[in-house]
Amino acid sequence: MNAVTPTGNGRLRAERVTLAHGGGGKAMRDLIEDVFTSVFEPDGLEDQARLSHEMLAVEGARLAFTTDSFVVQPLEFPGGDIGKIAVCGTVNDLTVGGAQPLWLSAAFIIEEGTEVALLRRVAAAMRRAADQAGVRIVTGDTKVVERGAADTLFVTTSGVGVIPAGRELAAEKVRAGDVALVNGVLGDHGAAILAARGDMVFEADIRSDCRPLNHLMEAVIEAAPGVRCARDATRGGLASALNEISQASAIGIEIDEARLPMRAEVKGVCELLGLDPLYLANEGALVLFVPEEQAEAALAAMRSTEAGRDAAIIGRAAEMRSPRVVMHSLFGGSRIVDMLVGEQLPRIC
Amino acid sequence: MNAVTPTGNGRLRAERVTLAHGGGGKAMRDLIEDVFTSVFEPDGLEDQARLSHEMLAVEGARLAFTTDSFVVQPLEFPGGDIGKIAVCGTVNDLTVGGAQPLWLSAAFIIEEGTEVALLRRVAAAMRRAADQAGVRIVTGDTKVVERGAADTLFVTTSGVGVIPAGRELAAEKVRAGDVALVNGVLGDHGAAILAARGDMVFEADIRSDCRPLNHLMEAVIEAAPGVRCARDATRGGLASALNEISQASAIGIEIDEARLPMRAEVKGVCELLGLDPLYLANEGALVLFVPEEQAEAALAAMRSTEAGRDAAIIGRAAEMRSPRVVMHSLFGGSRIVDMLVGEQLPRIC
Repeated sequence: MNAVTPTGNGRLRAERVTLAHGGGGKAMRDLIEDVFTSVFEPDGLEDQARLSHEMLAVEGARLAFTTDSFVVQPLEFPGGDIGKIAVCGTVNDLTVGGAQPLWLSAAFIIEEGTEVALLRRVAAAMRRAADQAGVRIVTGDTKVVERGAADTLFVTTSGVGVIPAGRELAAEKVRAGDVALVNGVLGDHGAAILAARGDMVFEADIRSDCRPLNHLMEAVIEAAPGVRCARDATRGGLASALNEISQASAIGIEIDEARLPMRAEVKGVCELLGLDPLYLANEGALVLFVPEEQAEAALAAMRSTEAGRDAAIIGRAAEMRSPRVVMHSLFGGSRIVDMLVGEQLPRIC
Repeated sequence: MNAVTPTGNGRLRAERVTLAHGGGGKAMRDLIEDVFTSVFEPDGLEDQARLSHEMLAVEGARLAFTTDSFVVQPLEFPGGDIGKIAVCGTVNDLTVGGAQPLWLSAAFIIEEGTEVALLRRVAAAMRRAADQAGVRIVTGDTKVVERGAADTLFVTTSGVGVIPAGRELAAEKVRAGDVALVNGVLGDHGAAILAARGDMVFEADIRSDCRPLNHLMEAVIEAAPGVRCARDATRGGLASALNEISQASAIGIEIDEARLPMRAEVKGVCELLGLDPLYLANEGALVLFVPEEQAEAALAAMRSTEAGRDAAIIGRAAEMRSPRVVMHSLFGGSRIVDMLVGEQLPRIC
């Protein structure tokens, strides 16, 4: 990890982005090289990256490939910004499929008039998150649209990783009796964004959980090689992640409300606003299923990592006549946890 | 190539996109599966693609990885739409680096209120272009932003391809005496977009040249294995592509105006509007440099393909004290062709 994040080559003098910075000429080159390339890859970034990696040549290894656009509002919030989320989100997408993330691309759609200083902060955050995850941002693109045609900045990252030979995580593999674990407290990202929007009547000291989860995942796989599947609980929250797994595996899932790790502040925000924390977005939380006999090893492995300090066993897969996600509540009852219907919070990531 | 492009599973009933379609729940799943997944990969598209390809395991083969956001306005124009351009642009980015394109990702940022029918047309165009190029769209993402936060639709594609062992195209390899070729008429895309914007005082029957160039490139490499480098002449046009090559190789480039293939209609539009056709964007044009003794073979190979019917030799690399791009004009003079300064046309791709 670099101790100091590179901060550009100083060639771009403009304070704000103009349409000329998207025109394909000199101004665009200055923007790209000064603000992005020199931060991501000081030795130079090609329009097209050409990459070798010994793991690619291993018989049976597969390539993982994923993409996400990020439109989070506000662009900067406690615990992160659109750049950090764009790197962590794509790293985590690869991670939950069992891939070891290697390379990212980053494409920026920039509104005319956007402050160059903002772009520099976003690029620096991306580099720091990439360093933390141990990935490289190897190619990119910028487009500039006229004032009013976009809301300041959208970032799209794609990621390429390698799935080692023989590793096969899939929701379809979950069996009755498998244990469900999460790596940490739930809902921090959603609550932090809500608070950061400033249209709340309260102030809450909640930071987004935005962070890369690949090192945690590797630790779990080493300790509990039978891990069935993992899912990051982003848009739609834990509830959506569990429903997707339940549907794919055609098996029921029971979780215990009492075991869900959650901050009092986040519970408070949800009560105040009538939100269900199970649907709050996370950017550094995953749920995974392991065979019962490996559950304690998986839990210990998670807790040995920074991103898994608050890990917990939250429930298990169970035969059900009609497979659903069911939550046993604090008060002894139980309720069905359905897929999110309608929108809860727009532009959460 | 599929004769019939799949048109969705019919599950999405809405006529316009709402914020709920971006919320991570059922509505989002219906949008993604009906409009995109079932068209791109009827057998199902995972959030993360897991891919095997025998070429990846070949010693010395490298992975190529590239990305581009597309913000073209209008979204549909004669000869293409934002979807076709998003597929062809990324395929061609991989192509000019010597890669054989294999897989694409597609990320959509959609403004609330966008017509679902438009999205279906765009998805169908993407599938057709992917079929034409012989690539698969294997993963994707959708985000919905509120009305006014984006201009209807932005598309970001990323591409992964394989560079066969031993293939090394690079602008740095261009030597004095190498011959420059283009595959077809120049400026059609830029002129078509200008005309399609409807704010011109003329009507012109010009279609974008938007098309995949990978099959053409493979034909050239087979016929002229010594090809030094290729560059697609997109934003900034032929002038920018040649300047990039000249700078990277520190060698001068001379081109002959009389040899540049260009439609009379495009010349007319440029004269009328005071535009320099050398800077007009293309979406299906590339320039490449080959050793002199392979120039005729390369030309014949290009002309044997659909996308190279109008191929021409346009100039050559030459020693110059201060390496520049110089054009010998129709009238016997010559002028320096510089990098584009400022913007010519915003949102051309």
